Amino acid sequence: MTTTIAIDAMGGDYGADVTVPAAIDFLKKTHNANDYKIILVGIEDQIRPLVSQNNADDLIANQSLLIYPATQVVDMEEAPAMALKKKKDSSMRVAINLVKENTAQACVSAGNTGALMATARFVLKMIPGIDRPALCSIIPSKDHQKTIRMLDLGANVDSSPDMLLQFAIMGSVLTRHVDNVDLPKIGLLNVGAEDIKGSEKVKKAASLLSQSSLLNYTGYVEGHELYDNKVDVVVCDGFEGNISLKTSEGVADLLVNAAREEFKRNIFTRFAALVAMPVLKAIKMRLDPRSFNGATFIGLNGIVIKSHGGADKVSFMYALETAAKQAKLNMTDHIREQITIALDTKKTG
Amino acid sequence: MTTTIAIDAMGGDYGADVTVPAAIDFLKKTHNANDYKIILVGIEDQIRPLVSQNNADDLIANQSLLIYPATQVVDMEEAPAMALKKKKDSSMRVAINLVKENTAQACVSAGNTGALMATARFVLKMIPGIDRPALCSIIPSKDHQKTIRMLDLGANVDSSPDMLLQFAIMGSVLTRHVDNVDLPKIGLLNVGAEDIKGSEKVKKAASLLSQSSLLNYTGYVEGHELYDNKVDVVVCDGFEGNISLKTSEGVADLLVNAAREEFKRNIFTRFAALVAMPVLKAIKMRLDPRSFNGATFIGLNGIVIKSHGGADKVSFMYALETAAKQAKLNMTDHIREQITIALDTKKTG
Repeated sequence: MTTTIAIDAMGGDYGADVTVPAAIDFLKKTHNANDYKIILVGIEDQIRPLVSQNNADDLIANQSLLIYPATQVVDMEEAPAMALKKKKDSSMRVAINLVKENTAQACVSAGNTGALMATARFVLKMIPGIDRPALCSIIPSKDHQKTIRMLDLGANVDSSPDMLLQFAIMGSVLTRHVDNVDLPKIGLLNVGAEDIKGSEKVKKAASLLSQSSLLNYTGYVEGHELYDNKVDVVVCDGFEGNISLKTSEGVADLLVNAAREEFKRNIFTRFAALVAMPVLKAIKMRLDPRSFNGATFIGLNGIVIKSHGGADKVSFMYALETAAKQAKLNMTDHIREQITIALDTKKTG
Repeated sequence: MTTTIAIDAMGGDYGADVTVPAAIDFLKKTHNANDYKIILVGIEDQIRPLVSQNNADDLIANQSLLIYPATQVVDMEEAPAMALKKKKDSSMRVAINLVKENTAQACVSAGNTGALMATARFVLKMIPGIDRPALCSIIPSKDHQKTIRMLDLGANVDSSPDMLLQFAIMGSVLTRHVDNVDLPKIGLLNVGAEDIKGSEKVKKAASLLSQSSLLNYTGYVEGHELYDNKVDVVVCDGFEGNISLKTSEGVADLLVNAAREEFKRNIFTRFAALVAMPVLKAIKMRLDPRSFNGATFIGLNGIVIKSHGGADKVSFMYALETAAKQAKLNMTDHIREQITIALDTKKTG
């Protein structure tokens, strides 16, 4: 069966210059013909020439690549409420509409995060039983064969313990299906200073998670254990999740910066850099944030994948892969199913 | 004038094996005679032989090094309440008592964080106007000449906006005096996802900080900007502070681990490692967490410095330096003074 993915072709820092070649490579290089169809949503005059430049007129001809017109573009800095109100024909909104009407089984956007969340929520609505969507992404792991998911990475702040339970259930379902992990281990992000074992909210959430028969809850995870393969899914409020994620970026940056300065210090260190280069590149590859691109707005009636705004082609293709996998697996149905069970248990329990 | 520092000689993973040599090197190698006096608090039978082994009987003879007996030791895993109740003659407690009675102008412990906080708070009491102490530490900076302080790193969770204001004032005073920064720039740790600009608490705190005439509040700081020299002091609740700090440790660990594996891969990478070694060491030195050792429990009627439990001699000496500097500057008085002004402003304002 052919799976269709809608792309907000105008979204992101580089818009169609990245999304169009990524879509073409996705179809031509990494997947079999007929497995996927891609709809590029946006300003036709900008998209069409890029298709030709990338020698992909054949994809248009055989209808595995379609261009779907949308006249507006949501700015990266635009207020979500304004985008929702004034940009009803934006590439972002139209791409989401295509998911809503099941023309596409998933959509991907590198656009304005807040606008994407607000629009997706408005158009697709929440899965009954889920209060708010979460942003779920893969994080690097010390054992680089293993996948660790973390949510919420910043869709919400001030989430309640009940919402953390919903996040846990969704993260568990996602990991079970996408990574074929039978009983994903779920951890709650918490602090470990001796006197304080977490905020009131986290303590309450821990009690909810440990009582749920749907979850394999294994306890608290501290910040320094995030990448330790201790669990499969790390659950947290979007405030801490976002701070933790961005702190990681900051530290990686600090280290790379220090390395660059030290290697440039003198003729000997420059030689050392030359010799060490392949190794440094291998390290970079392993931890390349591009390969972790593609966060899922989970909890909606439809698959919406957020790519990093600054994604390049390779990186955007990872986001497309994320969308493709979840669409093939009908992830929304699985989540809906588990949440229904959770609600039934709550009623009868 | 001679400044006296009391050391919980039994605290930390290595106890007297680290604290005694560190105290001796501090007195013999890094400071002038008569500038400092150190009181080693703990089990005399364990401390005394170490003094001799480190050829420091002269320091005992001239009374710049003193041994003050305490019969108990607080375990690293002991519940703070139990330590407070049952260990009234612990090396930790007695060291804090020496600060209370002004025999020492500061104390340093590598012991159980929770017990140290509970005991210090119980013995020394809070500075009037401060609700709870915060844990304040230096974090690395991209520009490695510059000092960035962050608080609270985990003394409290669920801090109120008012408490965040108190943290900001204390952090500002500390930076002004210790680093001679006239108007330290103060930032609030927050998230930056487009739709959500922080929790309710952080928004309220931002309003308080921006209104305070005692502060040079410059706005929000995101996780990835922590090390960017954007501000001099980063203020946050201990929950996020602890998660951010520990996430940093986790990422650094992940990177070092990846580097180690990649450099070991084959004969060429092993050669590369050999050549790159001095550079890698220089990077390590620059970001060496040991050199950031010595967190201040700020807000108490007395200076209490927490060393990392696993500190080695070099690292513990950094904690001693932190204590020494703050003691010489009478930091507690400066904080008391500013908090009094803040309270007066609040009354009249």
